[in-house]
Amino acid sequence: MKPVNIGIIGLGTVGCGVVNVLQRNAEEISRRAGRRILVTHGVVRDLGRLRACQTDAFSMTTDPNEVTDHPDVDIVVELIGGLEISREVVCRSLANGKHVVTANKALIAEHGNEIFALARDQGLTVAFEAAVAGGISIIKVLREGLAGNRINRVAGIINGTSNYILTDMLENDVDFPESLKEAQRLGYAESDPTFDVEGTDAAHKLAILASIAYGIPLKFDHVYIEGITNITSEDIAYATELGYRVKHLGLAIRRKDGIELRTHPCLLRNEELLASVNGVMNAIQIEGDAVGPTLHYGAGAGSEPTASAVVADIVDVVRALTTDPNNRVPHLAFQPQSLSDLPILNIEQIETPFYLRLDAFDQPGVLADITRILGFQSISIEAILQKGTSSQGCTVPIVIITHDTVEKAMNEAIQEIEALDCVRGAVHRIRLEMLRSHSAD
Amino acid sequence: MKPVNIGIIGLGTVGCGVVNVLQRNAEEISRRAGRRILVTHGVVRDLGRLRACQTDAFSMTTDPNEVTDHPDVDIVVELIGGLEISREVVCRSLANGKHVVTANKALIAEHGNEIFALARDQGLTVAFEAAVAGGISIIKVLREGLAGNRINRVAGIINGTSNYILTDMLENDVDFPESLKEAQRLGYAESDPTFDVEGTDAAHKLAILASIAYGIPLKFDHVYIEGITNITSEDIAYATELGYRVKHLGLAIRRKDGIELRTHPCLLRNEELLASVNGVMNAIQIEGDAVGPTLHYGAGAGSEPTASAVVADIVDVVRALTTDPNNRVPHLAFQPQSLSDLPILNIEQIETPFYLRLDAFDQPGVLADITRILGFQSISIEAILQKGTSSQGCTVPIVIITHDTVEKAMNEAIQEIEALDCVRGAVHRIRLEMLRSHSAD
Repeated sequence: MKPVNIGIIGLGTVGCGVVNVLQRNAEEISRRAGRRILVTHGVVRDLGRLRACQTDAFSMTTDPNEVTDHPDVDIVVELIGGLEISREVVCRSLANGKHVVTANKALIAEHGNEIFALARDQGLTVAFEAAVAGGISIIKVLREGLAGNRINRVAGIINGTSNYILTDMLENDVDFPESLKEAQRLGYAESDPTFDVEGTDAAHKLAILASIAYGIPLKFDHVYIEGITNITSEDIAYATELGYRVKHLGLAIRRKDGIELRTHPCLLRNEELLASVNGVMNAIQIEGDAVGPTLHYGAGAGSEPTASAVVADIVDVVRALTTDPNNRVPHLAFQPQSLSDLPILNIEQIETPFYLRLDAFDQPGVLADITRILGFQSISIEAILQKGTSSQGCTVPIVIITHDTVEKAMNEAIQEIEALDCVRGAVHRIRLEMLRSHSAD
Repeated sequence: MKPVNIGIIGLGTVGCGVVNVLQRNAEEISRRAGRRILVTHGVVRDLGRLRACQTDAFSMTTDPNEVTDHPDVDIVVELIGGLEISREVVCRSLANGKHVVTANKALIAEHGNEIFALARDQGLTVAFEAAVAGGISIIKVLREGLAGNRINRVAGIINGTSNYILTDMLENDVDFPESLKEAQRLGYAESDPTFDVEGTDAAHKLAILASIAYGIPLKFDHVYIEGITNITSEDIAYATELGYRVKHLGLAIRRKDGIELRTHPCLLRNEELLASVNGVMNAIQIEGDAVGPTLHYGAGAGSEPTASAVVADIVDVVRALTTDPNNRVPHLAFQPQSLSDLPILNIEQIETPFYLRLDAFDQPGVLADITRILGFQSISIEAILQKGTSSQGCTVPIVIITHDTVEKAMNEAIQEIEALDCVRGAVHRIRLEMLRSHSAD
């Protein structure tokens, strides 16, 4: 069979990874795919720049249209990131009858509904395995491998930067700003780290996973988002003392009345599988009604792990070139005409245990005041930790773990606690997550 | 689209699991597959027996041919296990133009080459995700998700019975026979447990994984097989003391001169991910040159976890019904005409560290004798443990961990050590495995 021609738009870290993997493993890949896969075009912003891959074997250009419009290109691989140009590139490729492979989580999470509709109209595929958790084949597992299941929960460490920082804060007892600097030095965090440490990147990935798990349209703007910037080494030390790790999770959980969709720091018991996923690694725990709990672990980012997913998508698309478009795996796992309108629950309705940390003046009646407020909101206490005694006029830290509490009640309780004369400053809160077996009913 | 009709041959634990999952999740499954999937026929040995699923909705028969030959059946699901009747059922279904889904690891490992050839001739698919590690989509991940990688190692806990027993022996400090009895009582071991505890079941699964990872034909008869029956609670206690867990692994490792293909008990450092996979759970660690290490964890057996894989296969086959047969995912990941003849290495050529345990009379020169023999075979020692002193004439246990040693040299050293006057009985050995990042070159 004649080779399949690939045009790659964007030859940065991931783009060069794709070129290197396709070249190095050309023989094994064509033995799997049944035909050769050739990179015929590369699009870059600056032709003069030194690259981490050989570009002699294909034409290089600065104009994306030369690829999206080229009659010999079968598949366009979009690796430029961002929202605007990438969207134009993808839509134009589809309009020209080309399949698309992308690693762009923001694009899929924010414009996926529209892009998939366009692809369907054209009988084409937009593949995006690399958009979530890099080399872990989580889209494939969720969309195909677990197709017999009613999914009840998706819980994942899906932002490597945040996981690196939280691991470093624990292991080296440093605070967030110092750890972030180290992550930047090592290339694990961008010079502007906002997307990673504020939770947006995890929210993009979570929106995609939730859609595939529950058969709902992409709803990025419904995700509750909280990053790791307020986590202190003090919190991590108390969590450790109580038998927990602090992890930044993406959570999509089926409840009777809708779907919880939230990404934020969590306390996880040491025994949980996800608690021992460290450094930049990613892992996703999926719970289906038939299969029970499963865990999928691997590198979530980096040049070749991401390239691994891009190449797998290319091979999938190559196989689908001759398939009846209506019989392919649907983009969002469920047939587009049978997506459901399951509501996304508001964060205020959600019930979790909480970790609370506050500074109180060491005077009689403090704990009585705090526990009265919690009791009034029907919040019951699982554990309480009051450390040392202070010299006159100073504060002591109090740490509380609650039982399941509705967020709204917790908000009200915290407001009242912060208003107490004996309490200084804000109450720090971290939600706690139990990933033991879960059923929605 | 019209529904797809399924005939299930064998309605035991897994068969009833499949019926229950297809019925309970009918709506979600058809939203994914794009058409309804109906069980129209069930084949059992005894029509009168009470079953763990509703059979009212389809015809029941005792004659497999009524299903394999029925013009309305689209897909035959073979769940009777064993080698002979299952083989006839599968071949006859293929001859009649029906796709097959099977959970039968023995059948695939021992007759897969021939069955896949027949399927190809007929333009049909034989799907077998459920044959390896139940609900973990490991066939799909290895065959499709990692298609861009040169695979360097597959290492897995792929026999739940053995893992349950080893976990129980550790946690409850009991010996093998007692633990086996408990496993039988709980339904985790068969009344004849040979296949599981002697390693045959793991070898079947390993042969399948190796073939898909390395693009070689199925070579079950080349697998080195050792079960867990010789592991004692003493070994487990010493391993624990030295910082290791004892696990039964299947290993398929690429080396310069061929593939290591072996299943046996192993010492794993506590920090290894696989070391904390306990009870009946399965997990497989795959290392690809692009993706790095990945881990895939879940239930490896049981009614509904296995049914999860069977149903995923059914959905895959439903999608492939209209595909050009030459463009489907090849049965063994690589196109049949491009399988390679990588040799399987003989166990005597393989190099690993070893754990040795022996009983020696507590007299001067014992350690000198033993270390002289090891030194003569160029075996260097990583750690040595000699426990207590005995009363006159009794023996003391000596435990040794070696560095990398070729199996042949170890065999010769052990023979000589066992011949020493100061050594009583056999030398117990367990191979040690380091799953840190591995490259074949």
